[in-house]
Amino acid sequence: MSKAHAVRIGLDEMLAGLTEGDPVPAERELAVRFGVARDTLRQALHELLLEGRIQRRGRGTVVSRAKLVQPLSLGSYTEGALRMGRTPGRILVSWETVPASSEVSAALEIRRRQHVMHLERILLADDEPIGLESAYLPAARFGSLSTTFDPATSLYAALAAMGVTVTAAEERIETVLGSPREAALLRTTTAMPMLRMRRLSFDAQRRPVETVRVLYRGDRVAFETLLGASPDLSDARSHAGRGRV
Amino acid sequence: MSKAHAVRIGLDEMLAGLTEGDPVPAERELAVRFGVARDTLRQALHELLLEGRIQRRGRGTVVSRAKLVQPLSLGSYTEGALRMGRTPGRILVSWETVPASSEVSAALEIRRRQHVMHLERILLADDEPIGLESAYLPAARFGSLSTTFDPATSLYAALAAMGVTVTAAEERIETVLGSPREAALLRTTTAMPMLRMRRLSFDAQRRPVETVRVLYRGDRVAFETLLGASPDLSDARSHAGRGRV
Repeated sequence: MSKAHAVRIGLDEMLAGLTEGDPVPAERELAVRFGVARDTLRQALHELLLEGRIQRRGRGTVVSRAKLVQPLSLGSYTEGALRMGRTPGRILVSWETVPASSEVSAALEIRRRQHVMHLERILLADDEPIGLESAYLPAARFGSLSTTFDPATSLYAALAAMGVTVTAAEERIETVLGSPREAALLRTTTAMPMLRMRRLSFDAQRRPVETVRVLYRGDRVAFETLLGASPDLSDARSHAGRGRV
Repeated sequence: MSKAHAVRIGLDEMLAGLTEGDPVPAERELAVRFGVARDTLRQALHELLLEGRIQRRGRGTVVSRAKLVQPLSLGSYTEGALRMGRTPGRILVSWETVPASSEVSAALEIRRRQHVMHLERILLADDEPIGLESAYLPAARFGSLSTTFDPATSLYAALAAMGVTVTAAEERIETVLGSPREAALLRTTTAMPMLRMRRLSFDAQRRPVETVRVLYRGDRVAFETLLGASPDLSDARSHAGRGRV
């Protein structure tokens, strides 16, 4: 086992015995404890920092709160945050009506240069910025939101009040680095890996409702999904499995 | 619009007109074309590199092949790669029987220190390393694989031949940086954001089959999912509330 790996296991064990907000011992002390060079120790702490296990506070380092785990579902951000016992919030960055780019118009199945409502918001969990959302909706259909919608609240709830329910979505998940502007809005750096989620949402009539891109801080958010949980499906497969034995 | 943003849009438009393997014009030429400083241009190219849109080849830079899009499903890596027209492959890194750590034994519902089979493999797409898989299976149940299983092939196919079908799984997706060893095995650097997928798989009797962690190169792989497309998925959503911690 490499020294770096041994240190990481040692740090993992140490963190398992600590709780949120507990101070992490100083680098020098940990280097002595694990019998490794300061550089080796620093690299391991850097990994833990980017993974969101520890975070800087003032001059020291403390154990982080667990990541916000977002279920991959049609539920809103609000539901995901509340499920984790966090208070969801949103800060409006920009909200304007613009001609659709070729990419946005293709996604929303509207003609190019037709107008779309563009809404950009910072997603908060307990007042901590964890994501940057950029959503486009056809202005012809949803323009009335500009007078009725409070951008500090759930967009899906506002859509539901208009009688529009999102019943299906295509999602793609990637990892990227943020631009300097994005990193600054999320109070982190361009070295922080982000999770980028792009979603195209459809209503019950299979009409595109919105195309949205959310950039989540990689140290604060994880995604979770449950596959094949349907009892019908499991049942059918279990019979097939037994058939093979 | 900031200069950085304008350059990025310009580069995106340029890339849209090129195909895989086409050379990307030199930095100097692009800086002149977009009327920006070399540093601004370099930062934009760096983002495209980490996103896997472009890649170094020899002394130059060329347009990359599209990312391998892995559907979030119970299908194997083999199925996902074939669906994208790629030839899947695997290189064995290590394969040993070891006492289970507390984390692995808890996931697999076996007693601590009971033996598990640990299989570590590099996942290839068209001979290019795109992921590093680390799987643990209970040795008591699956030890016979050590004489029957060819590690260059699909583990799920080998399990199916034993009459074991994976019918459900819990997955968690995060972004992390790789360790020096992981980055080296994936022929990239520790600065490259990775997608880490952790999965706990169950058979039809709801017994844990394997706990696996796959580190995917962030520039070569994306995940995709379709939400709410069937009644099965809405069922999965209601189960997600019980998510693993």
